Amino acid sequence: MYFSRRKKYNIMFSSEEIQDIVKEEFSLFDWQREPVGLYAPQGYILALGGKKIRPVLTLMAANLFSASVREAVKAAVGLEIFHNFTLLHDDIMDKASVRRNQPTVHVKWNENTAILSGDAMLIKAYQLMCEVADSKRKVCLDIFSQTALEVCEGQQYDMDFETRNDVSAGEYIQMIRLKTSVLLAACLKIGALIGGANEEEAQQLYDFGINLGLGFQLKDDWLDVYGNAETFGKQIGGDILANKKTFLLITAFNEANDEQKIELIRWITSNNHPQEKIAAITGLYTQTGAKHLCEEAMRQYFDKALDGLHRLPLPEEKKKPLLGLTQSLIKRNH
Amino acid sequence: MYFSRRKKYNIMFSSEEIQDIVKEEFSLFDWQREPVGLYAPQGYILALGGKKIRPVLTLMAANLFSASVREAVKAAVGLEIFHNFTLLHDDIMDKASVRRNQPTVHVKWNENTAILSGDAMLIKAYQLMCEVADSKRKVCLDIFSQTALEVCEGQQYDMDFETRNDVSAGEYIQMIRLKTSVLLAACLKIGALIGGANEEEAQQLYDFGINLGLGFQLKDDWLDVYGNAETFGKQIGGDILANKKTFLLITAFNEANDEQKIELIRWITSNNHPQEKIAAITGLYTQTGAKHLCEEAMRQYFDKALDGLHRLPLPEEKKKPLLGLTQSLIKRNH
Repeated sequence: MYFSRRKKYNIMFSSEEIQDIVKEEFSLFDWQREPVGLYAPQGYILALGGKKIRPVLTLMAANLFSASVREAVKAAVGLEIFHNFTLLHDDIMDKASVRRNQPTVHVKWNENTAILSGDAMLIKAYQLMCEVADSKRKVCLDIFSQTALEVCEGQQYDMDFETRNDVSAGEYIQMIRLKTSVLLAACLKIGALIGGANEEEAQQLYDFGINLGLGFQLKDDWLDVYGNAETFGKQIGGDILANKKTFLLITAFNEANDEQKIELIRWITSNNHPQEKIAAITGLYTQTGAKHLCEEAMRQYFDKALDGLHRLPLPEEKKKPLLGLTQSLIKRNH
Repeated sequence: MYFSRRKKYNIMFSSEEIQDIVKEEFSLFDWQREPVGLYAPQGYILALGGKKIRPVLTLMAANLFSASVREAVKAAVGLEIFHNFTLLHDDIMDKASVRRNQPTVHVKWNENTAILSGDAMLIKAYQLMCEVADSKRKVCLDIFSQTALEVCEGQQYDMDFETRNDVSAGEYIQMIRLKTSVLLAACLKIGALIGGANEEEAQQLYDFGINLGLGFQLKDDWLDVYGNAETFGKQIGGDILANKKTFLLITAFNEANDEQKIELIRWITSNNHPQEKIAAITGLYTQTGAKHLCEEAMRQYFDKALDGLHRLPLPEEKKKPLLGLTQSLIKRNH
């Protein structure tokens, strides 16, 4: 309905309109078809909500270069389905039982259902990506495949890190680049290419996405410790209790003096007093300077992202929706 | 090397040459790259061997219409990697610990590794399918996606059937059509289209593949009971001990009189005497006529396949490799 309403060219869609277009496209799917065990879990995880940042980025990037975003809608939805496929399989691997306050698919159904319906989502994502116009199909599919493999590599490194005690901050950044940033970057690049961007413009948006993603993920780690329990929506200190090797923990280890190191190890090897553990490790993050370094890194990535967006040779007016989304991600407290 | 050796046109590749081309293409992959946990399992399952029927069918179909099979090699390998992805994930779902006398990936590594490396194989399969020439990429990708979703549906029905007691023979055939036949059929259709077949010819090969696949899968069920333990390579009666709802068991139930039904249920609900159970149920397959009906169905599907191949408007000479492969699948005893 948005498309037909828009007759004239040089139309800039607002953030809300883009959200609505994505929502409308998703409403076209029938997740109740047979076999129900394969399709219902896909509808379930997609309906759990979430910010739908990926399709929104795709359409905003397309809209930077094209008055219409119609050509990018299938790809945008495919990228969101791909993202949800990774959530579905990651939840099995991480043995996560809750997502957005609801049981995860492998808990609500079972593990086999989660594996198989995830597989089907990956296929569905490709099916939608193939709907890109002839002249741009190959380049978009190649970016998508390369990105999808990198996301798998990121998940593999994340799992590998669990059993390693020598993960450096650099390795951690590389891991979150693969696990989180490349997909955001690919959404922007694919959207831009579909919209008519040249290779250089598309690559500038890709780089913007990488920096945005790194800042975004570091903020995620930071919010897990310093977020407001009410607005954050999940328990503060979850990463600390799980001894998750976040940027904060890795940096705290690197920066700690001998005494602080002993204290860190003591808390990591004990789970008897959760509230004390969270308080103590949070304290050590401040004392070692890890908190400051995390905030500094976050700020640098977000600055780089904003700078990249600024240098994009397009009227500032056109960039407003993307700039608005970026600023909301920088400021977010959940 | 095969390609450069072949200078003249109208070349028909022998079955052995096709096998070598597939082998050569697979040798190009580097499965030792980082992260090893993601790539090594893919190399492992692909090296377990197997008949590589799918890429061979793809290339034979291409060779029916084209002197060169080069254009179909990437797709052929992609289809084999897709097949191995399904084996990898199915083995997790079926809790299978052995494949080709070797530990399955989730046993040799762990379940997370099997899930994630399987995901990467599905992506790799698409990456290779995207290498199809521009003019045929979309149609081949659409067939591939449709087929891949159907294979997932087949696996879902297979799992659904485990907890149902009212599965009909028709439903079973529909399930194996999805789980096994559509992929063989898609290999043939994709190969044919890449080779230059028109839609009708490609569809004839697809239908041939469906019948070949149904006969192939029924023969698989049959060999599990009536195969020679030495040549079959796995334990005879495995399906019987697992109470697997095969065509034989479903048909035996349908055809059994009350007395035979009681006896069948008695054996199915007991696993204390495996050898006696195998002997008794095998006996019931003969007495109820299930064995005969299975052989009859098998024969009919193979006959239909052969008939379809025969009616393909091409010189019989050209069809020889495909006919040879079909006959070897009909006669196979392992």
